[in-house]
Amino acid sequence: MMDQDKYFFTLEIAVRDYELDSEGIVNNAIYLHYLEHTRHAFVTQEGIPFGSLTSDGLIPVVRRLEIDYYTPLRSGDVMVSKLWIERKGPRFIFYQDIFRKKDGAPVVNAVVTIVCMEKDGRINRGDELVARLDKYFGNGNG
Amino acid sequence: MMDQDKYFFTLEIAVRDYELDSEGIVNNAIYLHYLEHTRHAFVTQEGIPFGSLTSDGLIPVVRRLEIDYYTPLRSGDVMVSKLWIERKGPRFIFYQDIFRKKDGAPVVNAVVTIVCMEKDGRINRGDELVARLDKYFGNGNG
Amino acid sequence: MMDQDKYFFTLEIAVRDYELDSEGIVNNAIYLHYLEHTRHAFVTQEGIPFGSLTSDGLIPVVRRLEIDYYTPLRSGDVMVSKLWIERKGPRFIFYQDIFRKKDGAPVVNAVVTIVCMEKDGRINRGDELVARLDKYFGNGNG
Amino acid sequence: MMDQDKYFFTLEIAVRDYELDSEGIVNNAIYLHYLEHTRHAFVTQEGIPFGSLTSDGLIPVVRRLEIDYYTPLRSGDVMVSKLWIERKGPRFIFYQDIFRKKDGAPVVNAVVTIVCMEKDGRINRGDELVARLDKYFGNGNG
Repeated sequence: MMDQDKYFFTLEIAVRDYELDSEGIVNNAIYLHYLEHTRHAFVTQEGIPFGSLTSDGLIPVVRRLEIDYYTPLRSGDVMVSKLWIERKGPRFIFYQDIFRKKDGAPVVNAVVTIVCMEKDGRINRGDELVARLDKYFGNGNG
Repeated sequence: MMDQDKYFFTLEIAVRDYELDSEGIVNNAIYLHYLEHTRHAFVTQEGIPFGSLTSDGLIPVVRRLEIDYYTPLRSGDVMVSKLWIERKGPRFIFYQDIFRKKDGAPVVNAVVTIVCMEKDGRINRGDELVARLDKYFGNGNG
Repeated sequence: MMDQDKYFFTLEIAVRDYELDSEGIVNNAIYLHYLEHTRHAFVTQEGIPFGSLTSDGLIPVVRRLEIDYYTPLRSGDVMVSKLWIERKGPRFIFYQDIFRKKDGAPVVNAVVTIVCMEKDGRINRGDELVARLDKYFGNGNG
Repeated sequence: MMDQDKYFFTLEIAVRDYELDSEGIVNNAIYLHYLEHTRHAFVTQEGIPFGSLTSDGLIPVVRRLEIDYYTPLRSGDVMVSKLWIERKGPRFIFYQDIFRKKDGAPVVNAVVTIVCMEKDGRINRGDELVARLDKYFGNGNG
């Protein structure tokens, strides 16, 4: 289901010890921080610093998230966080996979659905965002 | 799909301002903390303080999580967090819904799959846990 | 040094398990969240919801913080968080002490210096804030 | 007061957007995470991975922390986090300064007092730790 060739972006992230919980593994909520950090690094690399979206009055909002947890990360681990995206109407679907760097073990697989809200709460179709990211979208999307 | 009559447990939680992100809404990862806090409060109420599980050598681990986000919480909001559970073999399925207290608006719906790991990494069927929680499980489960 | 009679405000806060670190005690940074949550609850009780300050263009900023750690909090603990304040020119000094509820053991003592910044980065004397909180300030202050 | 020549260790850390609070600046508590992350990276570099201390039954605990906040960090900022240490009897004093990378602006100055606890709660003199770090301690210490 996850097609490795489709990854657009890869980021290495090191576990910080304060992200561990009382069992000595990274707390399940922290992976959502890693996923968000990866998405922001991706759009920043594309010349769309996250702050500029919100100053344009667009607020990207997570609508739905599915995540499967495989190997838990521990103190000292480094992860490789990868993503690719699809557009379905106003929804941007981020497919995000994290692997443990030292052995490639799968850590989490996630599918994150984002929509762009305007300040008044209406959903924006995100066409401006698509225009900037269009190299990633084939003909069939949108 | 979410059957309100099935809720076993309800907990009120107040938003803390440091949980807001730069758009002034609770960050999407923080809801996983609320969900976990609710599960721990539930098992504690049932006489199973979370710490006692781990001292028995059982570590409850999140295997999969699906979450839909509806109304974002903001500074000053109080939420009502509810859950009910099902057992499917070794998996405990927590159905968790959060509502905004002041108007009952749905905040998130989540389905969280937990398994109990033993210290050696093997999956435990969780029969001891079930025995303590059996009033919640009908005949058809497990 | 800490004068118990001077406490203006008391708030009970329950430890949430995700606040524990890998040693099973509340991580040292989390106490700053508890302290901030207590300050915000205090000003909200005084009719100054934190959000209204920032919409007035005032941003309260922590300038300095001193904290002594005594008894670490653990899973299941409830704390009693107390504060009193002094004003020294443009600085608001919050004296904040946290105790473990079950036995009154001291958890942390903190002294937190806050200033109000205007949007342009200038320091505001906070006179409006003082006007609203003046019952707490004797003649000698300011 | 902070003697730049005494720095033993330097680490670059990038701000992650989820560390921002509702004013768009890094929340004051997050700096304690950065400081802890720097200390752990330092002892790991010295061949003392943090986990090995605790498996030896020693738990490093923060006893006191003083921090002055200067320039707030924002989205996209990278910081340079530096430290040097002194020993005073059983106490390890970490002098930790963080600067904004792009212009060297001071972000925070902190003095963090750590003691090593044994599992039974007694304070350990930390002689084993000192033996491993002795190149950093001159004759007059301890």
